[in-house]
Amino acid sequence: MSKTMTKKRIYLFSEGNKDMKDLLGGKGANLAEMTSMGFPVPPGFTVTTEVCNEYYANDRKLPEGFGDELREAMKDIENKKNQVFGGSENTLLVSVRSGAKFSMPGMMDTILNLGLNTETVKAMIKKTNNPRFVFDAYRRFIMMFSDVVMDVKKHIYEHEFKALKARLGLKEDYDVPAEELEKLCTLFKEIFKKNTGRDFPEDVYEQLTLSVEAVFRSWNNERAIIYRNREHIDHNLGTAVNVQSMVFGNMGEQSGTGVAFTRNSQTGENVVTGEFLFNAQGEDVVAGIRTPLDISEMEKSHPELYKQFLDISGKLEKHYKDMQDMEFTIEEGKLYMLQTRNAKRTAMASVKIAVDMVHEGLITKEEAVNRVSPDQIDMLLHPYFPVSEKKKAIESGKLIAKGINASPGAACGIAIFEAADAIKAKEEGKSVILTRPETTPDDAGGMNASVGILTSTGGSTSHAALVARGWGIPCIVGCEALSMDTEKKQFSVGNKTFKEGDWLSIDGATGEVFEGKIPAIKPDELMKEAQELLSWADDIRRLGVYANADNPRDAQRARNFGAHGIGLCRTEHMFMESDRLPVVQKMILVAGDAERFKRQLTRLEEELAAADESKKANIEKSIEHVKAEMAEPWATYTDCLAKLAPMQKGDFYGILKAMEGFWVIIRLLDPPLHEFLPNRDETMEEVITLRITGKNPERLKEQEALLEKINKLHEFNPMLGLRVCRLGIVYPSLYRMQVRALFEAACQLVKEGVDAKPEIMIPGVGHVNEMKTLRKMVDEVGHKVMDEQGVKVNYKVGTMCELPRACTVAGKLANPAEGAQFFSFGTNDLTQTTFGYSRDDAAGTFIPVYVETGILPVDPFQALDREGVGRLMTMAVTDGRNSYSDLEVGICGEHGGEPSSIEFCHLLGLNYVSCSPFRVPIARLAAAHAKLRNEDDRFKSGHSTK
Amino acid sequence: MSKTMTKKRIYLFSEGNKDMKDLLGGKGANLAEMTSMGFPVPPGFTVTTEVCNEYYANDRKLPEGFGDELREAMKDIENKKNQVFGGSENTLLVSVRSGAKFSMPGMMDTILNLGLNTETVKAMIKKTNNPRFVFDAYRRFIMMFSDVVMDVKKHIYEHEFKALKARLGLKEDYDVPAEELEKLCTLFKEIFKKNTGRDFPEDVYEQLTLSVEAVFRSWNNERAIIYRNREHIDHNLGTAVNVQSMVFGNMGEQSGTGVAFTRNSQTGENVVTGEFLFNAQGEDVVAGIRTPLDISEMEKSHPELYKQFLDISGKLEKHYKDMQDMEFTIEEGKLYMLQTRNAKRTAMASVKIAVDMVHEGLITKEEAVNRVSPDQIDMLLHPYFPVSEKKKAIESGKLIAKGINASPGAACGIAIFEAADAIKAKEEGKSVILTRPETTPDDAGGMNASVGILTSTGGSTSHAALVARGWGIPCIVGCEALSMDTEKKQFSVGNKTFKEGDWLSIDGATGEVFEGKIPAIKPDELMKEAQELLSWADDIRRLGVYANADNPRDAQRARNFGAHGIGLCRTEHMFMESDRLPVVQKMILVAGDAERFKRQLTRLEEELAAADESKKANIEKSIEHVKAEMAEPWATYTDCLAKLAPMQKGDFYGILKAMEGFWVIIRLLDPPLHEFLPNRDETMEEVITLRITGKNPERLKEQEALLEKINKLHEFNPMLGLRVCRLGIVYPSLYRMQVRALFEAACQLVKEGVDAKPEIMIPGVGHVNEMKTLRKMVDEVGHKVMDEQGVKVNYKVGTMCELPRACTVAGKLANPAEGAQFFSFGTNDLTQTTFGYSRDDAAGTFIPVYVETGILPVDPFQALDREGVGRLMTMAVTDGRNSYSDLEVGICGEHGGEPSSIEFCHLLGLNYVSCSPFRVPIARLAAAHAKLRNEDDRFKSGHSTK
Repeated sequence: MSKTMTKKRIYLFSEGNKDMKDLLGGKGANLAEMTSMGFPVPPGFTVTTEVCNEYYANDRKLPEGFGDELREAMKDIENKKNQVFGGSENTLLVSVRSGAKFSMPGMMDTILNLGLNTETVKAMIKKTNNPRFVFDAYRRFIMMFSDVVMDVKKHIYEHEFKALKARLGLKEDYDVPAEELEKLCTLFKEIFKKNTGRDFPEDVYEQLTLSVEAVFRSWNNERAIIYRNREHIDHNLGTAVNVQSMVFGNMGEQSGTGVAFTRNSQTGENVVTGEFLFNAQGEDVVAGIRTPLDISEMEKSHPELYKQFLDISGKLEKHYKDMQDMEFTIEEGKLYMLQTRNAKRTAMASVKIAVDMVHEGLITKEEAVNRVSPDQIDMLLHPYFPVSEKKKAIESGKLIAKGINASPGAACGIAIFEAADAIKAKEEGKSVILTRPETTPDDAGGMNASVGILTSTGGSTSHAALVARGWGIPCIVGCEALSMDTEKKQFSVGNKTFKEGDWLSIDGATGEVFEGKIPAIKPDELMKEAQELLSWADDIRRLGVYANADNPRDAQRARNFGAHGIGLCRTEHMFMESDRLPVVQKMILVAGDAERFKRQLTRLEEELAAADESKKANIEKSIEHVKAEMAEPWATYTDCLAKLAPMQKGDFYGILKAMEGFWVIIRLLDPPLHEFLPNRDETMEEVITLRITGKNPERLKEQEALLEKINKLHEFNPMLGLRVCRLGIVYPSLYRMQVRALFEAACQLVKEGVDAKPEIMIPGVGHVNEMKTLRKMVDEVGHKVMDEQGVKVNYKVGTMCELPRACTVAGKLANPAEGAQFFSFGTNDLTQTTFGYSRDDAAGTFIPVYVETGILPVDPFQALDREGVGRLMTMAVTDGRNSYSDLEVGICGEHGGEPSSIEFCHLLGLNYVSCSPFRVPIARLAAAHAKLRNEDDRFKSGHSTK
Repeated sequence: MSKTMTKKRIYLFSEGNKDMKDLLGGKGANLAEMTSMGFPVPPGFTVTTEVCNEYYANDRKLPEGFGDELREAMKDIENKKNQVFGGSENTLLVSVRSGAKFSMPGMMDTILNLGLNTETVKAMIKKTNNPRFVFDAYRRFIMMFSDVVMDVKKHIYEHEFKALKARLGLKEDYDVPAEELEKLCTLFKEIFKKNTGRDFPEDVYEQLTLSVEAVFRSWNNERAIIYRNREHIDHNLGTAVNVQSMVFGNMGEQSGTGVAFTRNSQTGENVVTGEFLFNAQGEDVVAGIRTPLDISEMEKSHPELYKQFLDISGKLEKHYKDMQDMEFTIEEGKLYMLQTRNAKRTAMASVKIAVDMVHEGLITKEEAVNRVSPDQIDMLLHPYFPVSEKKKAIESGKLIAKGINASPGAACGIAIFEAADAIKAKEEGKSVILTRPETTPDDAGGMNASVGILTSTGGSTSHAALVARGWGIPCIVGCEALSMDTEKKQFSVGNKTFKEGDWLSIDGATGEVFEGKIPAIKPDELMKEAQELLSWADDIRRLGVYANADNPRDAQRARNFGAHGIGLCRTEHMFMESDRLPVVQKMILVAGDAERFKRQLTRLEEELAAADESKKANIEKSIEHVKAEMAEPWATYTDCLAKLAPMQKGDFYGILKAMEGFWVIIRLLDPPLHEFLPNRDETMEEVITLRITGKNPERLKEQEALLEKINKLHEFNPMLGLRVCRLGIVYPSLYRMQVRALFEAACQLVKEGVDAKPEIMIPGVGHVNEMKTLRKMVDEVGHKVMDEQGVKVNYKVGTMCELPRACTVAGKLANPAEGAQFFSFGTNDLTQTTFGYSRDDAAGTFIPVYVETGILPVDPFQALDREGVGRLMTMAVTDGRNSYSDLEVGICGEHGGEPSSIEFCHLLGLNYVSCSPFRVPIARLAAAHAKLRNEDDRFKSGHSTK
């Protein structure tokens, strides 16, 4: 025959194996594997995905000669089952199921009981002596075939069935007697004819061929296309079709059906778990009409079958080297395996199973590490709602809204609308969900007093989100469905209103907001299996893992989670503390004048030195004038700095001590100074009010002066304003104070025998002259302090690489002698300027629209944009290391804790990633994955990254 | 002698020439050239700059053998003059002057009358019979030598001379009799001894050697170093020393001195101009004690000398091929040339001379084009204060402050503090200088009514600066010395206060603010020589020159100035016009809701199509719900758009018609929508006031609702917010309206037989999906309109390249079929995001400090930053053209009119630069310079660029 020339289009289950998923789909490949292993699989075969593609290429026609191959394959089933397809005795029924390479649950179609017609129905009745069973099967077949093959919708048939039950006064399907079902089948065939213009096919091969084609067509139904788009599955893969002889679990008490796992999918315990039902079909288990039994019950009722099942289960797991999720059917006392696949499991089970399997000698440590996703490690670190409780809440309509999942973890508490109230409520022993339109630094105290944070505006990098993630507090932001009314202390959603004190439950991992209480379960610490797994990950990874921490407590926590350094210690949070904020504010209000006069003075003194005799007198007069003008602001300014210095020293002392022996990267002051000032809108409101009312003229004068200063410092685009190292150039005394405090702290520690290792990070450098100027300042101040103290401190100076321009001139910036000794990518800001997106604004406005409409594949503030931002980073690393081969390069943006971004950092050859303490374990695992995936073919398609 | 082995250290004037400036300095090279040409130059020689460098390399010692060479060179002068240096008869006196490669006026030192001592004084008296003259010369020599060589300051001597005159009751130096001067010389020598511990040197060679060394040392005095730093002159060049025999113009009525130009340096007229004085020295001309005579007077008094001088002058100009600035002295009836150099001249003279010289056959057109700087062309386009008037104003202390020179031109008018008042004042026929802290779009009317604009804040790209440059109105911004009080309508500076109606004069080219009136002169149009010169420039340049214009009037003006296209037509200005602003505001207030519901509807409809039967009913219910909610905002939204459409069509019709035959690049809406809304602060103030007073509750409710909307649209960093093409994605109907209006206008013109050529520019693209989505929209709408109208329009679609990310993905963006057909660099925004600087904020805060302290060489918003921004542009051009070799690339940022930036665009191979209409002539010239300088060695060190 000519077929020998063409590719094999149909594989009997006995001909395939588990590695043929591309050709046979997932289900087909596993059925073949089980068949080859000698397990009892009802005979069948798989039509390959290539036939599906041929079908489409061939203008939706099955290829020539396919009919013959189909008959040949059916012949094989007939032989194995000793049955005849369409036969009037021992009639063979089959199922036709789709089966693509990647699981697309419910997206494509299935037809059961195929092979029934007027003749075979009789044969079946004769054989089973159960006409109700046979007509019920026939009824279902006609309906499924109509729906799937001829697009005559199910509900038309269901409507008739319901009408029948009503007429008979019956409630349950199984109460309908056989003769009524027989009549119903006749009616169904009439409906079919009316809708399609043709008789319901009696020819079983016609039934089969039309069904195979229908499954192929279902690959491109609208739902399937939408699903694949969403899951990024290639539309050209095609689906396979599995044709398998039917077995029936509903043929009496010696029949049954069930699903089982080789281990406990909730806890990971090494024991088979599952459920089964006697005299039932798979549908019945799913429909939940009858309560299934625990699989262990089978041991009592059918010890032999149970033993056989356990044996198969054990062998399957060993064979697949992973926990299996199996479906089986018992037909009149005989066990059939219908499906096996790697089982879904909880985070906890995932970790335990991976580690156990290593100890059992089943898999390697690398494989174990690869099996667990960073998200699962993340889950283990946060409180969570038990699956069952959450399901219950959703089913009872308690899910009121969904926002942006800003910080994972579950929390349950009463709604409180003001930070101050949150503190009070906490003192009264209450659990608080701080519920606000947004948060500001002023709310820090209240946030710290809350078990969860919920905002109606802002994105995943808004203030609330950043702080919550840093502190490990569950948080949902940008929950726009909530209409907040802070004055009335309430919010509404739909037609419901929630007031202060009402209970809310939020799941920060999913963004779900529930009304009422769902108790959250909090894991005490990382379970021991997770710790073991992470230690293996540490052996694998090449990237270092640091943490971002601004105080000794966070530093200690980071160390406990396995961080080997601090990649970002922000000094601005230190300025916000309530005892120093007044000093900071006073300082800011005079800093501009003080430093401006100082610059004038310096310039005049230079001019004086260079001047003609004739001009000197004039210049000297100007100098006197400037000196007089600067006296007051300068005194106030330096006095404030002098007060802040010892506090800063204390801050640095604490954190350097907590991280003894590890490098601590301390960033000099970064945000625009007006962030430390009183709120502009509020000050304005007070001024206007005081002006109108005429009350308290003294306060008015004060506040007017304050408002004028605030307005002077006000910026249209503070993100692009007077901040980062620009502060150090415009207000040099401020940076000098910080550097001096840092060296004084380090010197004191060295004297105390503590190995303090500070790295001074200059934020936002864009021009090499900024770097040179501030490097020189740090070295000067540092050497002065070390000389005074008589000790040496091991320190480095570097820059935060967070501007596109820094990336373009990285070759100049990197310079061990007078430039940067290290780079740390500040990818939050770098993403902002590369895209021209403000985190604060974009997250709530256009980024959601962009992601929804597919303009952006993903929010670039969540996963690092390799194409754009990544290209600039590559440029910076390449040029920087060309200039200075030992340049240390890391990342300290939010991306440092995100797996796909971590992989990119690995590929870029960075030295380390730095993330919030709570994400350190995640980063350790993701860094190992990055190494495995990119340096070992076996792990190419690993977990977790896009 | 061993000298033959070393380099030649001293060049006689007869040995050098004008091309040896590196070695002999400018002055020495020109003295040598004139000597070689046979003109009467007092004999002398030049010690090379190499000796200066040897001197420094040799630890500040003159090289070995130098003394012998010096004596040999002096011998040559002695022979030529028939005098003896230090001789007791026919004694030779010399001057010792510095002379570097680049002129450093007044920075280094000069010693005259060197060679006088006790003996030679006697010889001089004997020869001149004029002891007063000789002792006066001796007095001066002692003083200069003390000051320059021994650092005994001049003023000590001057003090004694003053005391002497006081004792004698005399006022003028020349009234002091010889015997008193003789005594004074003795006193001076005593002072010298007291201060230096040694006798004043009698040995003339000691005098000479010490003086040469002193001139070398003066190269590194503080003033000279500061000057070189400021002018970017290499510190390693060193200075030459010119030793020249003295001639005296003060030896009686047959002696004299003068300066002259070969042409008129004010007008460029081809006639010798200059001034001279009989019986005087150069100093006397400079000191202004006596009024010099016009050089033409010489013809009457000394026709022979005058003829000789004219002959020399003509020959020098022909020889140097440029207007010369000459110094001469007449000693007892004999003419000596002391200096010649290329003359400084006004802009007008520069252009006229360059063009005349081409017609005279003296220089080529290329040379003429190269001789004129873009700044000079700029000067010709703007009103200016006559030099003399400005000088007078400065001398009388009328210069009250200096700000940033934001838009060139001089203006004189009364100070007005509010835009509305400016309009009124103009209507009353007054000239107005609009004087404000800053300007906003609301002030546009008032700005248009003003002859000049002066702001106390903001930088060179602030609103005031941008608008003023666009409209060609003289403008000074960021004049921080002025304390504005808009409430009182006054400002103060120092201890002066200026009120509404006070006269001010501002020079936008220099940033100078004067009190009182200085009448400005306004050129009618570009003088005909300039037009001729620019036509030559057009023949030379490769870069096209387009203009930025938003309306037909500006487009026509641009065309008149020689623009061959519109590189940027902003559509937002059209939205601001008073007749449409209310419609625009109404539209904005509903746009967000309308489009959000529309997206929800689309999503639901998709879901419906993909849904299970079972879920359809629910989805249909949601659809009804959304439809109900969107009805009102959608109706308002589309109604507003429908009202705006014909207005937009009119805008586009006008500009496309004005630019018939040329491409017009129209940018779709760019700024964040809240820019069109009422001012937030003012609305807030009204709301607070209404709340407190309780008056007008209806208005309160209205304004509260408005404020809520404004707050919702408010952004923390609008520059990085919902703007540019993001508007087109989030508010698709808005962009569709613009595109439809554009195509309707173009179709109508085509029907009228007008060659309309629109290019649609999508602003702020950062991701290829933005480009693809909007390109598709433009093509769809365009084809629809063209089908409706039945005509074809020649159009292109492209993007404004203004984000770093756009540069990194330019290879994907450039795509003739579904991406960008052209790029236009928006370097204002690209500079903002590359540096992370907000124009609005940085200009007034840290950029001035950065430029002052040398962190930045120049404000990157003024001259394009080649290192950072330029690297990204290079990437974009390279990748873009790799994808699509015919990609059209231009620039439309402010840099498009700045010469150094234009040169960079030429080097990058851009197709065109686009700038404001008033800068088109400048760009035409600068583009020619860029070509000449980079493709022809003769023009390497041309005019105008840094």
